[in-house]
Amino acid sequence: MVIMTKYVYDFREGNKDMRNLLGGKGANLAEMTGIGLPVPRGFTVTTEACIKYYDDGEDISYEIKEEILNHLIDLEKETGKTFGDSENPLLVSVRSGARASMPGMMDTVLNLGLNDEVAKGFAKVTNNARFVYDSYRRFIQMFADVVMGFPKSSFERKFDVIKEEKGVQYDTELTAEDLMEVVEIYKAEYKNHAGVDFPQDPREQLMEAVKAVFRSWNNDRAITYRRLNDIPSSWGTAVNVQEMVYGNSGDKSGTGVAFTRNPATGEKKLYGEYLINAQGEDVVAGIRTPQTIETLKDVMPDCYNEFVRICGILEDHYKDMQDMEFTIENGKLFMLQTRNGKRTAQAALKIAVDLVNEGMITKEEALLKVEPKQLDQLLHPNFDQTSLSQAKVVAKGLAASPGAATGKIYFTAEDVMKAHEAGEQDLLLVRLETSPEDIEGMNIAHGILTIRGGMTSHAAVVARGMGTCCVSGCGELVIDEEAKTVTTKDGQVYHEGDWMSLDGSTGNVYGEQIKTVDPEISGNFETFMEWADSVRKLKIRTNADTPKDAIQARKFGAEGIGLCRTEHMFFEEERIFNFRRMIAADSVEMREEALEKILPYQRKDFEGLFEAMEGDPVVIRYLDPPLHEFLPHTDEEIKPLADSLGMTFEALKNRVDSLKEFNPMMGHRGCRLAITYPEIAKMQTRAVIEAAINVNKKGMNVTPEIMIPLVGDVNELKYVKKIVCEVADAIIKEAGVKLTYHVGTMIEIPRAALTADEIAREAEFFSFGTNDLTQMTFGFSRDDASKFLNEYYARGIFENDPFAKLDQNGVGKLVAMAAELGRKTRPDIHMGICGEHGGEPSSIEFCHRVGLDYVSCSPFRVPIARLAAAQAAIREKENK
Amino acid sequence: MVIMTKYVYDFREGNKDMRNLLGGKGANLAEMTGIGLPVPRGFTVTTEACIKYYDDGEDISYEIKEEILNHLIDLEKETGKTFGDSENPLLVSVRSGARASMPGMMDTVLNLGLNDEVAKGFAKVTNNARFVYDSYRRFIQMFADVVMGFPKSSFERKFDVIKEEKGVQYDTELTAEDLMEVVEIYKAEYKNHAGVDFPQDPREQLMEAVKAVFRSWNNDRAITYRRLNDIPSSWGTAVNVQEMVYGNSGDKSGTGVAFTRNPATGEKKLYGEYLINAQGEDVVAGIRTPQTIETLKDVMPDCYNEFVRICGILEDHYKDMQDMEFTIENGKLFMLQTRNGKRTAQAALKIAVDLVNEGMITKEEALLKVEPKQLDQLLHPNFDQTSLSQAKVVAKGLAASPGAATGKIYFTAEDVMKAHEAGEQDLLLVRLETSPEDIEGMNIAHGILTIRGGMTSHAAVVARGMGTCCVSGCGELVIDEEAKTVTTKDGQVYHEGDWMSLDGSTGNVYGEQIKTVDPEISGNFETFMEWADSVRKLKIRTNADTPKDAIQARKFGAEGIGLCRTEHMFFEEERIFNFRRMIAADSVEMREEALEKILPYQRKDFEGLFEAMEGDPVVIRYLDPPLHEFLPHTDEEIKPLADSLGMTFEALKNRVDSLKEFNPMMGHRGCRLAITYPEIAKMQTRAVIEAAINVNKKGMNVTPEIMIPLVGDVNELKYVKKIVCEVADAIIKEAGVKLTYHVGTMIEIPRAALTADEIAREAEFFSFGTNDLTQMTFGFSRDDASKFLNEYYARGIFENDPFAKLDQNGVGKLVAMAAELGRKTRPDIHMGICGEHGGEPSSIEFCHRVGLDYVSCSPFRVPIARLAAAQAAIREKENK
Repeated sequence: MVIMTKYVYDFREGNKDMRNLLGGKGANLAEMTGIGLPVPRGFTVTTEACIKYYDDGEDISYEIKEEILNHLIDLEKETGKTFGDSENPLLVSVRSGARASMPGMMDTVLNLGLNDEVAKGFAKVTNNARFVYDSYRRFIQMFADVVMGFPKSSFERKFDVIKEEKGVQYDTELTAEDLMEVVEIYKAEYKNHAGVDFPQDPREQLMEAVKAVFRSWNNDRAITYRRLNDIPSSWGTAVNVQEMVYGNSGDKSGTGVAFTRNPATGEKKLYGEYLINAQGEDVVAGIRTPQTIETLKDVMPDCYNEFVRICGILEDHYKDMQDMEFTIENGKLFMLQTRNGKRTAQAALKIAVDLVNEGMITKEEALLKVEPKQLDQLLHPNFDQTSLSQAKVVAKGLAASPGAATGKIYFTAEDVMKAHEAGEQDLLLVRLETSPEDIEGMNIAHGILTIRGGMTSHAAVVARGMGTCCVSGCGELVIDEEAKTVTTKDGQVYHEGDWMSLDGSTGNVYGEQIKTVDPEISGNFETFMEWADSVRKLKIRTNADTPKDAIQARKFGAEGIGLCRTEHMFFEEERIFNFRRMIAADSVEMREEALEKILPYQRKDFEGLFEAMEGDPVVIRYLDPPLHEFLPHTDEEIKPLADSLGMTFEALKNRVDSLKEFNPMMGHRGCRLAITYPEIAKMQTRAVIEAAINVNKKGMNVTPEIMIPLVGDVNELKYVKKIVCEVADAIIKEAGVKLTYHVGTMIEIPRAALTADEIAREAEFFSFGTNDLTQMTFGFSRDDASKFLNEYYARGIFENDPFAKLDQNGVGKLVAMAAELGRKTRPDIHMGICGEHGGEPSSIEFCHRVGLDYVSCSPFRVPIARLAAAQAAIREKENK
Repeated sequence: MVIMTKYVYDFREGNKDMRNLLGGKGANLAEMTGIGLPVPRGFTVTTEACIKYYDDGEDISYEIKEEILNHLIDLEKETGKTFGDSENPLLVSVRSGARASMPGMMDTVLNLGLNDEVAKGFAKVTNNARFVYDSYRRFIQMFADVVMGFPKSSFERKFDVIKEEKGVQYDTELTAEDLMEVVEIYKAEYKNHAGVDFPQDPREQLMEAVKAVFRSWNNDRAITYRRLNDIPSSWGTAVNVQEMVYGNSGDKSGTGVAFTRNPATGEKKLYGEYLINAQGEDVVAGIRTPQTIETLKDVMPDCYNEFVRICGILEDHYKDMQDMEFTIENGKLFMLQTRNGKRTAQAALKIAVDLVNEGMITKEEALLKVEPKQLDQLLHPNFDQTSLSQAKVVAKGLAASPGAATGKIYFTAEDVMKAHEAGEQDLLLVRLETSPEDIEGMNIAHGILTIRGGMTSHAAVVARGMGTCCVSGCGELVIDEEAKTVTTKDGQVYHEGDWMSLDGSTGNVYGEQIKTVDPEISGNFETFMEWADSVRKLKIRTNADTPKDAIQARKFGAEGIGLCRTEHMFFEEERIFNFRRMIAADSVEMREEALEKILPYQRKDFEGLFEAMEGDPVVIRYLDPPLHEFLPHTDEEIKPLADSLGMTFEALKNRVDSLKEFNPMMGHRGCRLAITYPEIAKMQTRAVIEAAINVNKKGMNVTPEIMIPLVGDVNELKYVKKIVCEVADAIIKEAGVKLTYHVGTMIEIPRAALTADEIAREAEFFSFGTNDLTQMTFGFSRDDASKFLNEYYARGIFENDPFAKLDQNGVGKLVAMAAELGRKTRPDIHMGICGEHGGEPSSIEFCHRVGLDYVSCSPFRVPIARLAAAQAAIREKENK
């Protein structure tokens, strides 16, 4: 018996738990259909069909085509309408719907089924030629854009010409005749691009549209979105084919989107927008500025009340805040979509805490509802109130995504990226309206300002998802994208590179740089993080080189320092001089003499750190970078240094040259320095141990953890550890005190992971340095890889940046192996991670799974890590 | 019950199978004692005692001291002599003896037990004050040098002064009174260095000497020797304490070394040297030039006959050529050592084949008797006979190690190393005599010339072991080491850097450069290699980029090409111009155009290789190095190139700059190039496939193996393989022929090894690129690591160069893992190694063990690999 895979599901066949197969949209349309809500009928082509499409060389197999056409026949029967019939035509929407929501990333085709014949007949039957030709022109444009890939702008330009000719401002002011004219112009434009006529066969239209949705899964912006949001390319997208309902069929019609709670604040209050006589895409695309949902109560009270009732049902049903799309066709409400709504971090916390308080969910369920990365939003700076009080508001828009941002303005996503690459830090993106193509620039910008578009416009939705401050719909500013300027009502002109500031919580726009301050955290955040702390198993440490960072991180909940990079301490003032003197020296004695001068500073650094951490563990990594990083390299810089060091220019130049390396990443650094220049490790040991003794005298109880970097062989660690212990033990003995200290190593070289059983004989702890481990496991350096990694993403070779998200398949295998081997030798070995992955949720979950004791991350990532660690613990429990 | 470890064995307690515990020398002394040969009595302190000495922080424990002293008491009883007794003193030698023979590397102390009192009494009793004080002065000097580490030269200088004062040339001409004077001077000199008197307590002398032998295990030259000869530092050395017999007690005494067969040719004839009235070290150190062993027949016929008889017994007993030390004391013969003798490759083959023909050993035993690395000697060039016939012999020495060498002369090992580092290829080391400190320079030199010393001098023994050509004892040359010159009898002066040539098979020295030619191989070599081929499992391929190399390698027995590096082909004449044009191009079209010009050359290269290999497999690696390696980097070079490319200087300079990399080793290279510039891979595919089709038309049957380098993720290989197959299949289809080709990858990035199961989905074969794999697994680049690796060896952190000998513990773990994962996905996957380790015996044994199909190495290493592969198969069988 051959088991046939079923590739198409009627909405009545599915439910919300089938999102892997039907996609989020399809599963929820099925669920809403199942619980009796007014959903236009339709069916879903599964994600498996999408995968098969790619397996079959980007073609829809015969069996799947058959299945789609059979469902189409069922749909005709149910609706009593016929595909391609000019009297009573069935029109459908074709929409993508992946497992995870990818707003605006995927393509949609509306009004499919229209052709010249159908339009003519349908106009007659409906007696609403305006509506029919409005639909037809939309369909041609979408089909040309989405299915055929012709430039949207060439159609938009034609449309603008017509509007100008007719002397109207809005689409809705165009008459039926105007729109018939548009349709003819569009068809000509289509033929112009395609070389053939616009397809008149609805079945051909449908198959091409389904293919286009499948194809859209691998368009550039979808690939970028997936990479930014950790969505695997293997998932594929489903396609939803659904009977059209017409929000653009007159003034008793409309379309809108709404949230059951406020997605910006979490307030339990319906929140949304709608447009009269419009189709769905109009609202989201932000072309016309829509009305708030409350006003619908006055315009169409029945529809409004019905909608409110449905909102209640859906929230109870999904036990989460819902984000819904609806259409009203001649006074009748239809639900087109529901999903758990995207929200700001602030809202996410409030909703999670509220839902627990309302008795709808458990604390553990609440913890899973907040995306850890989102917490970042809460930690970003706000405006300094004093500076703010002196600043002048130059414009006001919608408070689309909270937070404060100050920066230089740029007018295209590319310009933002270029400025970023050129080293600019504070950047704002200013656009008429954003589009999915802008995603990378939006990700880099500290704030986004749009002239058009509402609270649910593309810019607003994406910015909230990213935690980026956004002011949208700021119509009082006049933008000239060509000239790269914005002009205020008062005539003040801002050019590219000028400073502006945005307040995403008020919608205020300022024409100057405003000082920002660290955010304060309390309330829901505290409650929520306490819940997280109560379930997580992983400890959270921070990477901090200064008492300031350490104190910041402790405020965010850090339980120790997982990585203090001592080399940063050598760059300051007097130290760098003596450190350079040390490097230039050609005898042990001269090096020791120079190091002696650095010792008091270094000791003081460590005292500061120990005091800031109040007895919490502090891991100190010994000098890591190659020595040439501390020296100047041009003759102009070498000359004065030689003078001040009392050396000849030639001698210093020779020394600089002799330190040059072919591959500094794989050169004379890390423990290799401690082996060839043991006096450096001795000085650092002296500083650490003396600092600990001094601080302990004040009543603290510091146990320093000394970390030897870049070990690849146990003998390296053994050699350096011996030096460290000899110096440390002598100081402790001389001081006549008791002091415990530990010596461990970073596991950051593949060979260290492979021989971790041997290394654990000497190492009291392991800290996985997954930055270098990733570089060496992949065999590319981070700096050089940027030259080809973008092409890797574009060609689908890599889905993620392995420096951002731990590569569990390769690098993770080494980490897991090392953890196991390490414990085999030393069952109680303490293990953590200190690479940047220590602040990345999926990597943290991995660390939890392989049984590390802690993760260490930058101070601002500590709350993210706390939540991610909690989620890892909860998920593990669920999977057991 | 406590089990006591036994640390000291009487010679009567051991045997030859206990070499791990007693060392080679100790085990053989015990064996000889056991079979009744005349061996002075004594005992061995075990290698375990040495290991314990290091574990105990370089100290001899109380229990071991006790055990030594108890054995000393036994020795006194047996010999009837007493330690420290002035009437009948027991004197002993203290010699090192590791598991593996390390000639000249370890330290020895003779005549231990002498002091002022004993000397005085002993002189009286023996009535031979000359002999006693000769022994005493030797003892003081050795003790000062070996045990205390005082400079030998300071004693030698004093000795020379005395000889001058007394107007004598040889030590033997000094009288008893002279030597008593020497002893007084030496004691003063000792005190001068030590600050205390020369120790008079024989037991103190003994313990210090034992410690010194243990310490000598970790002296610099021992570490270097171990590294060059793959001897683990964990083995430790044993110490042999043996009753002295006195070769220096008069004209009826003497000492010598001999081999049962000729160690240079393998001829079955006694071969050796001796000195009358001398102690053992005099012969080996090469200070006096000794007599050949045959002359002993006339001088002391009884001793000679007895010695010949013992030689026969020993060779029968050990079933191998023996290298023996003996001493004659007043006409009585004593055996001081026997061991399997070191020999030239030529001798090794002859002896192995002869022993099989004599019915003494099996073929498999014979195969194990030859060190694979030695075969290298047979493959090195000889002088071109025409050039040689025109060359003039300027001096003649001893033919100490066969082969021919031509090169620039240097007078110290350091100078040889410096010249080597500066890029000089052909180097000769010229020395008065060599010492163990010279080992590294000797390893680099192509030939060694010494003025003093015989066939068993340090230079001769070491050179034969290394397979380096050596002429020793060339006393007709006058050397001025200060001025760095040698002068011939005719007054011709050669300075540092001048060319000379050495014939190690005749002893001829030439004062000019002489053309060398490849060696011819036949006879024993053919027989022996056939035996090897009949037992080995591994196939042997070669790394070859040119038909010339390929033909050479086939002569040596290569069964295919395991690695053809295509980039070398781009550097030639016209190609480099077009290749640079390709790199400088800024569009795919321009690149394709430039590549089109390179295609015919590349195709011809491959045709040549395929023809040379006559249907044997050929693995072609696609372009690997980063593109900047093909471009000039200085403005002076960029200018003319820009002109010839028709570009502005700025444009080309920008392009050069944009290609610069921080870490080129981890940069844009390997398959990363094929991904970003698929047109290069397309051109290479076209060249490979068209070449194969062309050659097959001539009746060959070529199956090209296309190797994609630097893959770290299966998606990289999948992407490039698709491009390759599309081009290849199209060409094959168009040509209307049948052609099989394979696409595989190098496993040279740690991640490739870790995910080899995934990669094997796409790869039809794996080739382990252990050069890069070693760099990335260790996290150091070969070029940069040289800066610290010497310190690693010196500090005992590394014992071997991981680039020469595969690191089985780390890199090997990845190789084994990848082999296993690869087979899991694709059970018949073909696997080989193409890193330099493919020609290194211990690495080849590893490859055999993990089940690779072949190893690939440079042409001259092919015979080594054949033998190593055979030995691996035999050892595996033995261990089963």
